[in-house]
Amino acid sequence: MVSTPLPAVAARPDGKKEKESDSKARLRLWIRLLRASRLIEGMARERLKAQFGATLPRFDVMAALFRKPDGMLMSEISRFLMVSNGNVTGIVDRLVADGFVARSQRNGDRRTSFITLTRKGRAAFAAMAAAHESWIDELLGGISARDAEQMSAKLKSFRSDWESEA
Amino acid sequence: MVSTPLPAVAARPDGKKEKESDSKARLRLWIRLLRASRLIEGMARERLKAQFGATLPRFDVMAALFRKPDGMLMSEISRFLMVSNGNVTGIVDRLVADGFVARSQRNGDRRTSFITLTRKGRAAFAAMAAAHESWIDELLGGISARDAEQMSAKLKSFRSDWESEA
Repeated sequence: MVSTPLPAVAARPDGKKEKESDSKARLRLWIRLLRASRLIEGMARERLKAQFGATLPRFDVMAALFRKPDGMLMSEISRFLMVSNGNVTGIVDRLVADGFVARSQRNGDRRTSFITLTRKGRAAFAAMAAAHESWIDELLGGISARDAEQMSAKLKSFRSDWESEA
Repeated sequence: MVSTPLPAVAARPDGKKEKESDSKARLRLWIRLLRASRLIEGMARERLKAQFGATLPRFDVMAALFRKPDGMLMSEISRFLMVSNGNVTGIVDRLVADGFVARSQRNGDRRTSFITLTRKGRAAFAAMAAAHESWIDELLGGISARDAEQMSAKLKSFRSDWESEA
């Protein structure tokens, strides 16, 4: 959603603006959140492709696996990434072919395979993650670390399953 | 991009947490922004479909036209929505069929058509926009209007072309 109309704020005789309603304030915040996420995600997508030949879904799958050294089931990866199993299968197949990911059985259960990052995969992901962090630091550089912390706190209800405790 | 690894914050002997680096603070903010925008956009998509039988791109095109009573060229709509002309054409064709949008020539120029919302289209969009504003108000209800204003100000570099001056 790119936009939604925000009625112009009426000018008052004293030159100040009328106070917006609470819902208008949240609507403006929403539009800016959406625009920021679109722009930053687009930039990250381009740079991942240009600098690492990687797609965002591939980065996401590797990020998920990086945080679970014991491995994940395909269904777990899908659930966390909110994409279909079929999509994850294709991504994992390519990661296996590249030597970044391995499938293994656990506890003698031959029916379900656990997916883990290989040492090579962990190194490749660490490089991407460091670059990604620096891109975000650049793109959100207009926001001080203190402000970023305060804003994260206000958005705590959108805390990701993936975040460390903090 | 669903996630990126945030190293766990190390515990200190005094029980306080180590201060995160600035880039980590921005990375956490980014993850929450992204998660918030994904969740809210998904909810808006579902509700537009269920309550109005509308898609997000359709809503976006109508929002664009709502703000330009004099009409827009197809190319202008595409540019603002960051989608291909082909996609916009299909959406506009359906809006014309529904009587929400009209094509017209201007200044005797028969080659380029201007797209405008009809009266019916304006009424339909106004209803959707009011519902949309109430959904956002609900989904971001955990953020006070004052905090929303402050956060919008911090995100001012992501100000949309579509926003009214404020």
